[in-house]
Amino acid sequence: MISVVLLGAGNVATHLYKAFSKAETVSVVQWYNRTRSSILSYANEVEITDNLEELIEADIYIMAVSDDSIAKLSQNLPFTNRLIAHTSGSVAMHDLDKKNQISVFYPLQTFSKDADIDFYEVPICIEVYQKENRQLLKDLAKAIGCKSHKISTEQRQSIHLAAVFLNNFTNQLYRIGHEICESNNLEFDIMKPLILETAKKIQNVSPYVAQTGPAKRNDKKTIKRHLKQIENEEHKAIYELLTASIKKTHKYNLPLTSSKKKNEIDNERR
Amino acid sequence: MISVVLLGAGNVATHLYKAFSKAETVSVVQWYNRTRSSILSYANEVEITDNLEELIEADIYIMAVSDDSIAKLSQNLPFTNRLIAHTSGSVAMHDLDKKNQISVFYPLQTFSKDADIDFYEVPICIEVYQKENRQLLKDLAKAIGCKSHKISTEQRQSIHLAAVFLNNFTNQLYRIGHEICESNNLEFDIMKPLILETAKKIQNVSPYVAQTGPAKRNDKKTIKRHLKQIENEEHKAIYELLTASIKKTHKYNLPLTSSKKKNEIDNERR
Repeated sequence: MISVVLLGAGNVATHLYKAFSKAETVSVVQWYNRTRSSILSYANEVEITDNLEELIEADIYIMAVSDDSIAKLSQNLPFTNRLIAHTSGSVAMHDLDKKNQISVFYPLQTFSKDADIDFYEVPICIEVYQKENRQLLKDLAKAIGCKSHKISTEQRQSIHLAAVFLNNFTNQLYRIGHEICESNNLEFDIMKPLILETAKKIQNVSPYVAQTGPAKRNDKKTIKRHLKQIENEEHKAIYELLTASIKKTHKYNLPLTSSKKKNEIDNERR
Repeated sequence: MISVVLLGAGNVATHLYKAFSKAETVSVVQWYNRTRSSILSYANEVEITDNLEELIEADIYIMAVSDDSIAKLSQNLPFTNRLIAHTSGSVAMHDLDKKNQISVFYPLQTFSKDADIDFYEVPICIEVYQKENRQLLKDLAKAIGCKSHKISTEQRQSIHLAAVFLNNFTNQLYRIGHEICESNNLEFDIMKPLILETAKKIQNVSPYVAQTGPAKRNDKKTIKRHLKQIENEEHKAIYELLTASIKKTHKYNLPLTSSKKKNEIDNERR
């Protein structure tokens, strides 16, 4: 049984609490938050506190707090030589105060208050300063059904950057699609199967192979008509930049030189 | 039983052929393509031809050919007053020659040669010139497990534009994530659960509500570090533009005016 003290009450903390609570080999022995009211509703199932001095002994202290609070919270812990982990994608492990044994337990997933997360197969990026702690972190990941990966701080920061493209920016494209639908009296629901299939497709083929559409085909006529169709200047700028990016990836950044090549492109159009 | 003659041999045609073949109430009576060799492998299961003069009678002629070929092919059909449909997201219904009864049967999905498509719940955008043909198109959609939607040419063109954002551009963001992983010796596989969850999440909540991350929080420190991290100038431009777009959507386009507001943002950070 792995005993855990959880620190923080945001989305990551709440989802981790739920996952740890369900796990047979994990016991959340205490939940700390600087604002007691945020975790008060859990008081009947777990010991809660808003006082760092009251923290009890545990195998690991998981800090799921905002990036800016991590270093300071680690300094304020009233004990030494225990195992602490932060859960951030971007904060360096060495920002944690070395009076304790330090580590990182970063779940690579998107967490919202409103959406339940199945932790099954969520990748957990693990980093440890003291090698002997790796196994406990791996066991903790396994206990909630996750795959763990040995990842350096630099790699984790790259993953976090990639995640901004794959999650935040992708979601903003969904938002733009939503806006286009709304301004044309269309239910956004009609786009949902396409969104899901787009994500499913690259589970098996590379994004390079999965690409389709006017930019990939260098279909100037459709691109021109689309740009004429777009009323929002910001949407237009995004259309132009991502179209150029796709063209570059698929080697249409240079002008076509032969009509033969042009025909080949037309033939693969649908 | 609905009898279908299919015209074209690209991704859409091939996927439609497979779906129609499986449907109990649809019979593909003939498959036309200008290049016989492209459909020759199906010759043992369906009548094939590369000669328009040989086209046989059917309830509907489905033209799944490139956008540029639709008008001309409809002119070249050697019969009149039969029901023809094109399957394009962007070509106007009225580009079809009106010597026949004209319609549109546009499956809103991404089709690749390499990926099998489950047509179940794929939205089919239906447009008819002669009202009495609507039911047949609806029945055809239903026969392959699809939902049909009455959509005007203008709406369909908006859907097609939205699809470029939601499918092609999203896929390019996946590609950029892939490049970031590769240049940091990371397996792209680690990002796949996040990609899938990002798409799944907006099946139930709006993209506005689903948004998270540094741009939404106006987390200048993380944004600055990310921009420093990105080596590729094109990736940097995309990062900046989409970050600005998210900020605008979430009303951080203006400078913050009170420290109270700043604190509120910090508190919701994780």
